Amino acid sequence: MTDQISDFHSWYDERARQHEYEVTKAPLESLGGWRIDGDTGDVVHETGRFFSVRGLHAKTAARGPGEWSQPIIVQPEIGILGIVATVARGEVHFLMQAKMEPGNINRIQLSPTVQATRSNYQKVHKGKDVPYLDYFRPPRHGGWVYDALQSEQGSWFLAKRNRNVIVEIDEQVPAQDDFRWVSLTEMSALLREPNLVNMDARTVLSGLPFLLSGLGRVSGLGTELSGGRVERARHSTSELLSWFTEAKSRHEIERRLVPLGELPDWSLRGGEIVHREGKHFAVIGVDVAASGREVARWSQPLFEPQGRGVIGFLGRYIDGTFHVLVRAEAEAGTHDTVEMAPTVSCIPDNYTGSLAAYRPAFLDDLLGAPESRTLVDVVHSEEGGRFYHAENRYLIVDVGEDFDLDVDDDFCWMTLSQVTSFIRHGNHVNVAARCLMSCIAGEKATLAAAV
Amino acid sequence: MTDQISDFHSWYDERARQHEYEVTKAPLESLGGWRIDGDTGDVVHETGRFFSVRGLHAKTAARGPGEWSQPIIVQPEIGILGIVATVARGEVHFLMQAKMEPGNINRIQLSPTVQATRSNYQKVHKGKDVPYLDYFRPPRHGGWVYDALQSEQGSWFLAKRNRNVIVEIDEQVPAQDDFRWVSLTEMSALLREPNLVNMDARTVLSGLPFLLSGLGRVSGLGTELSGGRVERARHSTSELLSWFTEAKSRHEIERRLVPLGELPDWSLRGGEIVHREGKHFAVIGVDVAASGREVARWSQPLFEPQGRGVIGFLGRYIDGTFHVLVRAEAEAGTHDTVEMAPTVSCIPDNYTGSLAAYRPAFLDDLLGAPESRTLVDVVHSEEGGRFYHAENRYLIVDVGEDFDLDVDDDFCWMTLSQVTSFIRHGNHVNVAARCLMSCIAGEKATLAAAV
Repeated sequence: MTDQISDFHSWYDERARQHEYEVTKAPLESLGGWRIDGDTGDVVHETGRFFSVRGLHAKTAARGPGEWSQPIIVQPEIGILGIVATVARGEVHFLMQAKMEPGNINRIQLSPTVQATRSNYQKVHKGKDVPYLDYFRPPRHGGWVYDALQSEQGSWFLAKRNRNVIVEIDEQVPAQDDFRWVSLTEMSALLREPNLVNMDARTVLSGLPFLLSGLGRVSGLGTELSGGRVERARHSTSELLSWFTEAKSRHEIERRLVPLGELPDWSLRGGEIVHREGKHFAVIGVDVAASGREVARWSQPLFEPQGRGVIGFLGRYIDGTFHVLVRAEAEAGTHDTVEMAPTVSCIPDNYTGSLAAYRPAFLDDLLGAPESRTLVDVVHSEEGGRFYHAENRYLIVDVGEDFDLDVDDDFCWMTLSQVTSFIRHGNHVNVAARCLMSCIAGEKATLAAAV
Repeated sequence: MTDQISDFHSWYDERARQHEYEVTKAPLESLGGWRIDGDTGDVVHETGRFFSVRGLHAKTAARGPGEWSQPIIVQPEIGILGIVATVARGEVHFLMQAKMEPGNINRIQLSPTVQATRSNYQKVHKGKDVPYLDYFRPPRHGGWVYDALQSEQGSWFLAKRNRNVIVEIDEQVPAQDDFRWVSLTEMSALLREPNLVNMDARTVLSGLPFLLSGLGRVSGLGTELSGGRVERARHSTSELLSWFTEAKSRHEIERRLVPLGELPDWSLRGGEIVHREGKHFAVIGVDVAASGREVARWSQPLFEPQGRGVIGFLGRYIDGTFHVLVRAEAEAGTHDTVEMAPTVSCIPDNYTGSLAAYRPAFLDDLLGAPESRTLVDVVHSEEGGRFYHAENRYLIVDVGEDFDLDVDDDFCWMTLSQVTSFIRHGNHVNVAARCLMSCIAGEKATLAAAV
């Protein structure tokens, strides 16, 4: 295991050396290939494709500020995030890619086998072919064990979705340059390292239990944390679905696109679009010169969050079964009003000044949990193709059996297996919660997979 | 049983006598409380509430005409369709309502316990309280065994959804005027009568299997049709979800609201908005004078389909288990691009002239099936609050084991239990398919419920 990981790191460091590139901040006004629309102030690509940054006005009856405007990324295309998996030498392996993205803190991160927008794979920018793409298009090869449309960050994207897919094939096909077969044991270790497995890989890996159960191996999520006992869930699936339906009905959100240049609290200053109080995020521009990507040079806008975020589940045992506290969260860009989210997901630094009164519930419980009660604690970063150095600390803590079970309507206790079952249907569990689930699935699946 | 049904009909006929009312067609231009917007030609209520009729432009890469415009009903509120159920004298009973709607062919139809738009129950029109509404609002009484946001007709509504709920309570509370407890046995018989159980009741009753399984009674859907044998499904749930995800990715539809007055093929003529070739439907106005409804007099627009529709599943046994052929259908107003639909749903009369080339696949197989192979054949009508005399013939036919299993990408064979399991999550199975499922659930559940 230690040898495998050190082998992995030799390969990974070598890939990083092969991907020499430079990312330089550049003013939005002079970004090659992009322009700021004279009428609206929207940031758009000259071809009208890829994505655009526009203004969004949102109004909701939910708690927190009831009405606000913000910049948002509009990218209506459905891309593919796909991982090819196989069983070799008795263990599950994933074909992963070392991929450079301009917003990554470190040079490269570990990505799915295929991570491609529709523009990408239809080659709008006349780049290279997307390797292994045929595994994710008809006619089908292999078993498509997980295949769902999943949302991405609802506070930064307007109704963005990608197709998350795991395809199981019969043999370990040769890995091209920048690709490597990674075992489940290795993956579990890598998921504990900071900023290494990228968001796209993590969201797809939240479907790992479906692969394992298809292979006749339990994913171990429920039984493992329950010490092998039969899972006893506090709520039935009917009750959880009813809670979710009620939250969707309660949280109706009115939203409309508005000109980016006319947002009251945002302005273009020093080549960036920034918030009046310096909160939330800035829209910045970067020039990129790379060797190993589809084209050698490009420029693009990125969202740069102002501070490190915290994404975490509070959990506790209820009648011997571990449960997490799921939140029904309505974000401005959520595809269908509300999704199941972690107990807490926020950038704590935002809650000063005009937002001090809105400090999220349970944030202090999460940050104050002792290390001995922490099941997951790792810093990962969000999609480097759209976000610049967007780090989040992912936490799952056991708050203990004295923690009050009575919670507000927006919260609900669920077992890990229940959260997993909702992932399968798409658009139920948000990206933050899915990434947390992949962290714990990685932790626990190694044992189960060895059975 | 015959006695029960004749008792029911005495009550029902008496309710009909109590609900004397008159519905008269009236020109859209002079509809009390409504106006045709001078700029857009949209038909809107003076308060801006209830619903409006606007223009929709749709463009898709799917088969059939790739681009068209049409009138569409816009009603963004989520209403409640709820049935209260209980077990009395060993049998499941539903609290149903005899409800008048202006578009109903017969005077009244059997409705859910509560059938209320948000405007309704917030009493925008200052009418009476909605009886039994408290069962469907917090704080909760009883078990919410089925609770999902479900779409309505995607070809007539823009992204309309209602909350479909079944609440199980402990006792047979007294039935107010216009309400009656109906046993499952009676309901099964009533579902075989034409234009009696309304659409709102039928869509909620598609959740009947969740009530029965919660009561420890099998719904009988799968086992019954399989002659008691264990169900063997042609495709796994993973495969079905993957088929569905792929269909959603493939069928991206571009749609936008446009002024109703500017639709190329539609015009206001003789007080109605009609299609150039007299196809599809007309938007008409009616004046209503009623005794038993929330207010005594009102006017409103309705959609009047041009001809009777056909909604049907082709089915056959595969390895001893009955399967139906489900279609991934993209309609102009579908909430999320594609839903699981019956094999065929159309108004056959439309497929002449400019549309002759688009006669739907399998329509002739459905209409040509001999009576001996017909499991369901009943005429029901769609929601009389929005549609005028909108009848559909609901059919499920067994096409036999010689029928080709190889079908186009837009179609997929599923067992009835599989279709049922997707109903639970909302927004998977469209209203036509749900209504078909309630017809067959009614047929089969009687036996199971008697166990």
